[in-house]
Amino acid sequence: MAVGHINFPEMPPIAGIRLGTANAGIKQTVRADILVVEMAESASCAAVFTQNAFCAAPVLLARAHLPQAPRWLLINSGNANAGTGKQGLNDAAACCELVAALTNGTANQVLPFSTGVIGEPLAVAKIAAALPNAIADLSEQHWQAAAQAIMTTDTFAKTVTRELDLDGHTVRINGISKGAGMIQPNMATMLGFIATDAKIEQPLLQSLLNQSVEQSFNRITVDGDTSTNDACVLMASGCSSAPEISVESPHYALFAAAIMAVCKELAELIIRDGEGATKLIRIVVTEARDEAEAVMVGKTIAHSPLVKTAFFASDPNWGRILAAVGRAGVENMVLEKVALYLGDVCIVEQGGRAASYTEAAGQAVMNNEEITVTVNLGRGTATQEVLTCDFSYDYVKINAEYRS
Amino acid sequence: MAVGHINFPEMPPIAGIRLGTANAGIKQTVRADILVVEMAESASCAAVFTQNAFCAAPVLLARAHLPQAPRWLLINSGNANAGTGKQGLNDAAACCELVAALTNGTANQVLPFSTGVIGEPLAVAKIAAALPNAIADLSEQHWQAAAQAIMTTDTFAKTVTRELDLDGHTVRINGISKGAGMIQPNMATMLGFIATDAKIEQPLLQSLLNQSVEQSFNRITVDGDTSTNDACVLMASGCSSAPEISVESPHYALFAAAIMAVCKELAELIIRDGEGATKLIRIVVTEARDEAEAVMVGKTIAHSPLVKTAFFASDPNWGRILAAVGRAGVENMVLEKVALYLGDVCIVEQGGRAASYTEAAGQAVMNNEEITVTVNLGRGTATQEVLTCDFSYDYVKINAEYRS
Repeated sequence: MAVGHINFPEMPPIAGIRLGTANAGIKQTVRADILVVEMAESASCAAVFTQNAFCAAPVLLARAHLPQAPRWLLINSGNANAGTGKQGLNDAAACCELVAALTNGTANQVLPFSTGVIGEPLAVAKIAAALPNAIADLSEQHWQAAAQAIMTTDTFAKTVTRELDLDGHTVRINGISKGAGMIQPNMATMLGFIATDAKIEQPLLQSLLNQSVEQSFNRITVDGDTSTNDACVLMASGCSSAPEISVESPHYALFAAAIMAVCKELAELIIRDGEGATKLIRIVVTEARDEAEAVMVGKTIAHSPLVKTAFFASDPNWGRILAAVGRAGVENMVLEKVALYLGDVCIVEQGGRAASYTEAAGQAVMNNEEITVTVNLGRGTATQEVLTCDFSYDYVKINAEYRS
Repeated sequence: MAVGHINFPEMPPIAGIRLGTANAGIKQTVRADILVVEMAESASCAAVFTQNAFCAAPVLLARAHLPQAPRWLLINSGNANAGTGKQGLNDAAACCELVAALTNGTANQVLPFSTGVIGEPLAVAKIAAALPNAIADLSEQHWQAAAQAIMTTDTFAKTVTRELDLDGHTVRINGISKGAGMIQPNMATMLGFIATDAKIEQPLLQSLLNQSVEQSFNRITVDGDTSTNDACVLMASGCSSAPEISVESPHYALFAAAIMAVCKELAELIIRDGEGATKLIRIVVTEARDEAEAVMVGKTIAHSPLVKTAFFASDPNWGRILAAVGRAGVENMVLEKVALYLGDVCIVEQGGRAASYTEAAGQAVMNNEEITVTVNLGRGTATQEVLTCDFSYDYVKINAEYRS
């Protein structure tokens, strides 16, 4: 049920980053459900994690291991290892030990990640049995297989790639992500793994990741539910021949823009594959007092079940959008300054229906698969964009049938 | 699709309160869609209104007229007269003038209310044509017809009645409400009209209404969407032979409790008739730091589409409830103190799955039509209850097809 045209790029290798998958039979009996990522010794690694207070055991452990210069990621799909108490922490630690034993590393160099059903014990024995296969499978070529191994209710593997020419030196960036439901990342994201062969120190890498995530994964929502397991990792292997990237280097802006672009594209792919989604809705809030206010209004619209079902029905029911703006919590809003557009069609001006508006014009926009809603608050200069999808029968079906 | 057993009480007359309905053909061509309520000269009237910044024209006018000792209410269903700008205000004012002309009153003694589709001009001419019929229909007996006239997507008319014996004097309280969708009242409610023959001064009546609404209508949510037209009115005709009720009078507590009970029952009826609802879910948050925190956690659970679809599927998917608690914004929550119950079944203790929990026990609770979820935060003494319903195919169907 992907919305719009999806690019499935050839994923080139990233020097210094190897990926291996295997089938552990956690929930999937057919396809691979564990992924090991190995980073070169020269690599830096940055990560952001969910702000959900009930964050999963692997998130707690990965957060603790991040400052120890990690060399390996271990990701499993099919089980979130969340809401599993002390046993869950022991299980996540055991998985790190298993990777360490097979790679001559140490457990605190392993970042564990899990995604899937909450509250079930993790099948450590199954992972232990399959891990040697994943390690044996390690290769710089396996990005596509890696993107498939982390899927849960996703209907397609999400892959993005960029290549930069920095004064004759090639730098590559690859990213993969998974999403589909329980999507309202909060200062973090669903699972996203991005790697580059650029050389860049960890603190700068982390700051780049934080900025990029804030404007990409933190601006999407499927259902307003923040997962217990969200995480996004940015790895820089340092294996490119390009000079190290620092804040002062001439290529910093170019590199930062590319990381941002990869994050935005991965985030958009998650929405295009939102559970039951039939439409991609881009909500642009302009002339807000500040960024936070713009995001608040955008997310209030994006979370409204009434707005989302109207989009599903291709019904230009703009009253529901206006009602959402009205309850968003903007202080002292001057209604007469508010304007609302569906695509290029002005629907509301000065707080009431635009004289020029016709139902036919609104309907024409609503019939599209990708729709931009613009709300002009007329009270400042901040603009922010929030991406979401519609609410369909299939969202209910998927979530009434799937145990996530 | 009403959830559970609904009482349809015989609605006795309230002395000093007359109700008349008529069909204006605003959207309904068959049943009555306008209601006039007339209060005795001795009456006091209190009201609360939506906090939605885009509140409807009739809300603005009713708020302005409330201090003028109102004598009449005019309610129409089928059109919200919201998002209609200056024309909407003129139309609402014209309706008040029409009532005044037919009753020898003044326009500022009329409180107007509208519910229905947002953004369409109000058909004042149709209302003008039907108003004489509604006035001619005025009677103390017409509570049932009144409850029907204010319905939109409601599947049954919501009526509640109470009778108090105050030292041999009978005092009656009748209430009607409508709801179904766009339900997350904020300091107000969907349309609710409550009348008593008690004698009580306006400021005390208003304070009683405020308290009762806060613990009833403001604790329910169907979809998290706050309407542009929410309002609740409490009328006291003063026609009972019982002595005036003041804060010092011995019957004050009894009367206040009865008003609270009527509000709670009307609010619960709205949830039982929530759009597409198949289950009534009572979320009790205990040992919160304060009332606001308890309500915040309760509403976060109540708004989660993942929680609501799991209830629709009768799936004891408690991980989704835990994830909602985790993202509710409770500061410095100690996970080890959190406990979660489905009915009487302990699911989570000390932040992880309870040792005693079995899927069969959880499933048995989920199969019920009415379910209580209890979250113990273990950090204070405040308890609050939030009522909601599940999220079904029919919610999507109703809102993809109905223009609200």
